[in-house]
Formats: sequence, C-alpha cells, structure tokens
Amino acid sequence: MEPRRQAVRDRILRSAADLFRERGYRAATLDEIAARLAMSKPSLYGYFHAKEDMLAAISRETIEGFTRELALVQRSALGPDEKLRRVVRQHVRFVIANRSFLTVFFSEEPSLPPRIARALAAQKDRYDKGVEAIVAEGVRRGVFRDVPARLVVFGMLGMLNWLYKWYNPAGRWGAEEVSAAFLDLLEGGILRARARGPALTRRLHRLRRELGEVARALDD
Amino acid sequence: MEPRRQAVRDRILRSAADLFRERGYRAATLDEIAARLAMSKPSLYGYFHAKEDMLAAISRETIEGFTRELALVQRSALGPDEKLRRVVRQHVRFVIANRSFLTVFFSEEPSLPPRIARALAAQKDRYDKGVEAIVAEGVRRGVFRDVPARLVVFGMLGMLNWLYKWYNPAGRWGAEEVSAAFLDLLEGGILRARARGPALTRRLHRLRRELGEVARALDD
Repeated sequence: MEPRRQAVRDRILRSAADLFRERGYRAATLDEIAARLAMSKPSLYGYFHAKEDMLAAISRETIEGFTRELALVQRSALGPDEKLRRVVRQHVRFVIANRSFLTVFFSEEPSLPPRIARALAAQKDRYDKGVEAIVAEGVRRGVFRDVPARLVVFGMLGMLNWLYKWYNPAGRWGAEEVSAAFLDLLEGGILRARARGPALTRRLHRLRRELGEVARALDD
Repeated sequence: MEPRRQAVRDRILRSAADLFRERGYRAATLDEIAARLAMSKPSLYGYFHAKEDMLAAISRETIEGFTRELALVQRSALGPDEKLRRVVRQHVRFVIANRSFLTVFFSEEPSLPPRIARALAAQKDRYDKGVEAIVAEGVRRGVFRDVPARLVVFGMLGMLNWLYKWYNPAGRWGAEEVSAAFLDLLEGGILRARARGPALTRRLHRLRRELGEVARALDD
C-alpha cells in the first residue's frame, strides 16, 4: 500500500477504534466515523466497505502487533529472564499506546464473523504459547522457580492486558513506571525476603556460635 | 423478597447473563431470554421490565458480591499477608463461579445508563481502595516489600479478573489450583531465590573460610 493511503487507513482505524471504545461497536455508525474524520462517506468507502471490516482490521492489527514484538524477542540470544523482561515491557508499552484497539480487541469478539474470530483466537493462542515457552525454558534452566508455566503466563498476561481497563494517560504513571512495578512484583513477589531465607539465616547463626566457642576456647 | 421469588429472579439473571455473554448484550432480546427460561413474556415482565434493568441488576450484584467478601476480610483480625491471601482466594472463586456475570460486568459498561455506570464505578473504586489498604498496611508493617501499593493492586486484580476471559470450567484447573499458583507468584515471584540472596551467601562463605583458617591454626 502506498504510504499516503496507509496513513489515511491508519487514521480511519484509530478514529473508529476510539468511537467503538466510547460508545460500543454496535451503537457506532459509519456516519459518525466519517463525521469525526471530516471525510465524505464515499471516500471512507474507498477504504472500508462496512463497520465490520474496520472491526476485523482493528482486531487483526492488534494481535499482529503483539506477534511481531514477540518474534523479535524469540529470535534474540537473550536468556529467558531477560526475554521475559522484554516481553513485559513491550506488552505494557503496546497496551498503553493502543488502548482503543485493545478495548475493541478484547470486548468485541462476539461481534466478529465466526471465521475471523477463530483465526484471531488461534493467533492469540500462539502468542500465549510463545510466552509460555519462555517461562518453561527459564524453569528448565533453573533461572525461574518451578512454577506452572501456563497458569503463570495467564496470570501475567492478565496483569498486563488489564491495563486497557484502568490506565489513564493523563494519570501519574508512564509505561516505564508501570512495567518496572509489574516486573518487580513478578520477579520478586510481595513478601519480604527474610521470611523466605530462614535456612540460610539459621546456618549463619550456627556458624557464628561455633566461631564464638572457638574464640573462647583460644582465650582460655 | 420471598425466597421463591428471589430464586426465580436469580435464575432469570443467570440466564440473561449467559445470553449476554454468548451473543453480546445489544444483540440479545427479551424474547430469547423468555424462551431459554421457558417463561412467558408477561411472567418475565413481573420481574424485569426491560433488558436494561437486567444489565443493571447483573452489574450491581457483581460488585456487591466482591464488596461483601472484602468486608468479611477487613473485619477480621488477620495480618495483612493472610488478609491478602483470603482476598485472592475469594476473588478467584467468585470470578470462576460467576463468569457470565463478570463478562457482562466488564464488557457492557458503555451500555449502562450513565447514572448507574457512575454509581458502579464508585463502588468498584472502593473495592480497589480496600485491597490497596491491605497492601499498604503490609508494607507499613514490614510484612510486604516496599512496593507501590496502588500499581500492585491494579496488577493483581488484572491477574484475577482476567480469569473471566480464559478460565474453562471443563479444563484442568480448579479454583484452588489457580489461586495457589497466583498466590505463589504474587508472594514469591518467579526468579529463583538464590539470585536474590548473594549477600547472605557471601557472608556464609567468608565465615567458613575464617573457620577453616582457625582450624588450621589450631592444628599447627
């Protein structure tokens, strides 16, 4: 597609996604989309013939965006912990930058034609499995604890996807702060470490006691 | 409300929520709901006058369910770590047991009358703040690490709420397994602890070395 045409197409989809998010896909009309873009309906038809085509394009571009970014990480030579960090940061950035697309993608599945819905579900499933493979590799290599990879990935993606619901671009957090907080939680958990290292601490105390006894014996 | 009437009302709402989830709220009709329940439309009107009333009731009962369960935890004398565990377990159980309600609650906000949508958003906000207070208390008391409570709560609730999207009641995990995996991740993180305890390990090695030197000195 030539660049100018591509740019107009992108602008139409952004505008449609914003409207679908605000008013719901079914309530929105092509007339409103044309009005928002200050475009005539015939010009709009030169890009999309129906609201349904826009919905399909928005959904397809959303999952393709995720897939493209994951592929970059998968092809890298990074270790599984660094791969997972990249995935989290990319995912947060993508959701925050494309909130309307994500809202449509996650809320309007029942409005998609079944054939397209199935294709998208399959692509989404491949993304989930790709992230799962990174977690599983980390467990195998002993970088990650022995966690159930699939459940952990569903939990993690829930944490990341949910951003489309609550994130406020005018609010106090940027993408970097959100991913730093989420990564810190995902990597280290919320409980203070001291509660988790009693064995080491006990051994340390025992050694100290023994050293003290030796020191006293030497003094005698 | 008398028990029998209450039971019929519950059955109507469950059936409506299932239909809204499958076909989307706007596409569903009162005729279909009546047909699914094998009820006449006049009998259905004895409970709800419009589809919109059902949507409002489903949304209200969802947030009231969460609020009720949180209140039980808040009134308890438990420590913040145990309170958070209860919240996670209850939340997982509630989402899994009420998937259709949750789907409607999270997907059909734009279809609610603005006044009701605002009231529900305020109640949802109180729930978020209630969970946040538990995390903040844990941080203050040194049970939890020094995390940004609000971001952590949004992340955690995303993980829990997302269940309505992917959980399959015919699948391999029950509510207990899901909350155990999520709690393990939230409490301890995914990284292996050894990567987090280098300082302790170094001190242990130094002590061992010193003990060895003392032992050798004694042997001389």
